[in-house]
Amino acid sequence: MRKIAKYAVAGAAIISMSFRGDNAGQVDMHTVSLIKNEGFRNSQVMNTLFELTDVNGPRLTGSQGMYTAELWAAKQLKKWGMQNVHIERWGGFGKGWQIDKSYIAMREPYYQPLIGVPRAWTPGTEGMLRGDAILVRIEKLEDMAQYSGKLRGKMVVLSTLNNETKPNFTADARRLTDEELHKMEMDNHTEEVATNLSRKAQPGRPRVNLRPQIDSFLMEEGAIAVLSGGRGTMGTVFTSNGASRKWDAKPVLPEMEMGNEHLAILGRLLDAGKKVTLEMDSWTSFITTDSTEYNVIAEIPGTDPQLKDEVVMLGAHLDSWHASTGATDNGTGSAVMMEAIRILKAIGAKPRRTIRLALWSGEEQGLLGSRGYVKKHFGDRLTMKLKPGQKMVSAYYNLDNGGGKIRGIFAQENDEVRSIFAGWLAPFADLGATTVTLRNTGSTDHISFDEVGIPGFQFIQDPLEYGTRTHHTNMDSYDRVSANDLQQASVIVASFVYHTAMRTQKLPRKPLPKVNKAADSYRR
Amino acid sequence: MRKIAKYAVAGAAIISMSFRGDNAGQVDMHTVSLIKNEGFRNSQVMNTLFELTDVNGPRLTGSQGMYTAELWAAKQLKKWGMQNVHIERWGGFGKGWQIDKSYIAMREPYYQPLIGVPRAWTPGTEGMLRGDAILVRIEKLEDMAQYSGKLRGKMVVLSTLNNETKPNFTADARRLTDEELHKMEMDNHTEEVATNLSRKAQPGRPRVNLRPQIDSFLMEEGAIAVLSGGRGTMGTVFTSNGASRKWDAKPVLPEMEMGNEHLAILGRLLDAGKKVTLEMDSWTSFITTDSTEYNVIAEIPGTDPQLKDEVVMLGAHLDSWHASTGATDNGTGSAVMMEAIRILKAIGAKPRRTIRLALWSGEEQGLLGSRGYVKKHFGDRLTMKLKPGQKMVSAYYNLDNGGGKIRGIFAQENDEVRSIFAGWLAPFADLGATTVTLRNTGSTDHISFDEVGIPGFQFIQDPLEYGTRTHHTNMDSYDRVSANDLQQASVIVASFVYHTAMRTQKLPRKPLPKVNKAADSYRR
Repeated sequence: MRKIAKYAVAGAAIISMSFRGDNAGQVDMHTVSLIKNEGFRNSQVMNTLFELTDVNGPRLTGSQGMYTAELWAAKQLKKWGMQNVHIERWGGFGKGWQIDKSYIAMREPYYQPLIGVPRAWTPGTEGMLRGDAILVRIEKLEDMAQYSGKLRGKMVVLSTLNNETKPNFTADARRLTDEELHKMEMDNHTEEVATNLSRKAQPGRPRVNLRPQIDSFLMEEGAIAVLSGGRGTMGTVFTSNGASRKWDAKPVLPEMEMGNEHLAILGRLLDAGKKVTLEMDSWTSFITTDSTEYNVIAEIPGTDPQLKDEVVMLGAHLDSWHASTGATDNGTGSAVMMEAIRILKAIGAKPRRTIRLALWSGEEQGLLGSRGYVKKHFGDRLTMKLKPGQKMVSAYYNLDNGGGKIRGIFAQENDEVRSIFAGWLAPFADLGATTVTLRNTGSTDHISFDEVGIPGFQFIQDPLEYGTRTHHTNMDSYDRVSANDLQQASVIVASFVYHTAMRTQKLPRKPLPKVNKAADSYRR
Repeated sequence: MRKIAKYAVAGAAIISMSFRGDNAGQVDMHTVSLIKNEGFRNSQVMNTLFELTDVNGPRLTGSQGMYTAELWAAKQLKKWGMQNVHIERWGGFGKGWQIDKSYIAMREPYYQPLIGVPRAWTPGTEGMLRGDAILVRIEKLEDMAQYSGKLRGKMVVLSTLNNETKPNFTADARRLTDEELHKMEMDNHTEEVATNLSRKAQPGRPRVNLRPQIDSFLMEEGAIAVLSGGRGTMGTVFTSNGASRKWDAKPVLPEMEMGNEHLAILGRLLDAGKKVTLEMDSWTSFITTDSTEYNVIAEIPGTDPQLKDEVVMLGAHLDSWHASTGATDNGTGSAVMMEAIRILKAIGAKPRRTIRLALWSGEEQGLLGSRGYVKKHFGDRLTMKLKPGQKMVSAYYNLDNGGGKIRGIFAQENDEVRSIFAGWLAPFADLGATTVTLRNTGSTDHISFDEVGIPGFQFIQDPLEYGTRTHHTNMDSYDRVSANDLQQASVIVASFVYHTAMRTQKLPRKPLPKVNKAADSYRR
């Protein structure tokens, strides 16, 4: 009963907002009904996710796995009847990289296999390497001197942190509460707010800016391998890149990122002056024959002669990190966006504007695929020189906050879309999606559109285990994902895209951003 | 303020119960004060735990690690000034076993290192073994036939289960609530109750009784390795034995126990008809030169000429499983019991009765060390033929439910000790220890005493992450342990042992158990 009551209230609120001419968020309830039927009764989203994750494997940009995923997605989209399906080059990326073998263990004082993951773009040991471990703590550059002459032949346990693990009295997974959602909706932008609810602060990270100097120092001193990291517990390891993908990148040592407990065992033993020997056998390969990188593009062409050259876009990044199959980052986003366009095709939607799906690459390295695409078609965010295509895009919708169901949408400080989105959300109140927040959210591909003045939006999602267990970890696999959540998200995205494509006018736009030379450093 | 109020109430209740002659649980508050000062100000319990876990490594009974831990403990107890310190043989055990190398990965359809642990007493592959994976589901014996002729050269993914992993909305760690404790105290023994709060039901376990037949079938059919398990998520793997330690044990295949996600990836791919190849490189060794197994014994001699031949015992099992360093099962119990006797020595306690510490081996294989000791000194549980020593033991106190602080004690259906224990707990109400439950609890070494009529007790402890993350897992390491919890437990155990040693009479006993031939099957 409570759900129905809430729905009624939300609906009433919306109706009063909706009928204001251009700002109306009227809903075509017949199509919503068709979308829900297809999305909940004939869902293919979990099968799509299975193919992208379990079957395909990790999808690090530049790896063979990313390329096979793009080819599979294009083939599948064609099968579903999409038009203009192709993989589209966005530019050069640098070296590709993948893991061919990964093994690490402590040999003394006793044998203990360790859970570790090679950091992306680091070389392998190319055979079994054994050596004494040494604890190296460098918080500032002056800390280096004490290790001079002590590292030759050593395996460096790099710890800048006091990683104390405590019993975990907080559940890994959670959903947003009514209170949190209300706060997002009502927030008045005078407070400091987190830009991304799902990604927690990462106090455990070493200072990235010292790493190039540390890397050079370790090489010069003759160390033979590095163990680093320490984010993640209970066997979960957070991963990232450990070297540059650039063609002229400086050589670095083989390096593995470790979970907290295993790094901590080594740290405690070494702190206590115990002899620790490690063994490591890792092989990684660099793909240097070709650095072409692609996005996957597919369309349902518009049918209104006046509007069919205008576009509504939806997308998600298909690339992942390398330690697992990137199920929630961002297999789920990719599968949901593919499912949303599949649903629209399956119900025979005849959109007035063209609907275009994009599956991006290079997101994890700085929104590279989407920025490349936007630069080619819509404009240059650094100079703010825009192309004619910029005016033709009504909106871009993105999904990249894990596998949680949609609870609403970030209006990205665009006041005029607020009531439109509220109207479009109204039919989904009983599915938990109720909130339009004016807040900006960052860190993923809608930014590439927003920064050249195209309305770009990211949905609010339940965090589930995204920040705690899956985001960039070795445990980001298919098991983490709930079918119900993905079906709900697919249906809501399909409806938003459809209504954007049918609306008489394009979505209202914010004032054009100013030229911002610093934009290049926006992310990582 | 709330704590003080509770303490006052508990104290008042106790006082009314305490002064009933022999059933009094009077407290020597001066000694309690000394114990608390030593246990909280000069604690060594975390250092003891560090030595037993990080420094020593896994302590599987029969392994070199177990032997070095026993030698270290005996040496440390001597250093602390204990008397009659020795390691005491309890009998033959079978083959010792340890892991010398452990590596497993999926090679096709893409490379993915897998988290797996060799099951105890299984052989290694003794080099890199590669093969196609095949999914084998045997729920009942008739299910075997379908695999006949299909297993030669195959690596068997043994799955009898539908292991669905769901987002975890429950925290791994928890403490007992006031309501739970109250229920334990008031429970009237007419309900079915769990005997051990910390150990959850294990629905995921394959039916143990089919495994010998399955093992023989897989060998006969020419399979080359087995992947099994599926308990544990997020990189945590639950381990156990996969073969017999007996001298004449039948040969079995190399076998690894896997976490749920990795077993599930293989299961989904094989279910979908995909080709999966695995590679495995594991080495294990059997120690067959000697099967002598020991317990560690240490004493503070009694000082009362009339009572010094009587004994109060405290103990915990020192042995662990093999996948980690057994921090909470049962490094914590061992460290706390060592700390309790150290505290008593350090404060110069002059107990009337002799205080005797025992650190057991072979607990994980069926309370073997404590049963061996009890049989040698006190009596035979199968025939109930008792030795004179049986009468001389006032009580045995055990700790083996993880690293959580003490919340009370199981009176093990001994009505007469209830008010005594309530009195002895009273000074520790503000530390969270308030509950005397009449309930029996099982599954650890106090049972070896209880079953020959000697009062044997196990303390109630907060579960923390014991059932969810640490009990028999690859993540049972030092990081899981809270120093505050261990200090509290050490102080309470020291006080219980001291008061038992000083009491005019031995603790009251339950009626002697009847001869029970079935007792041998009590555990595992």
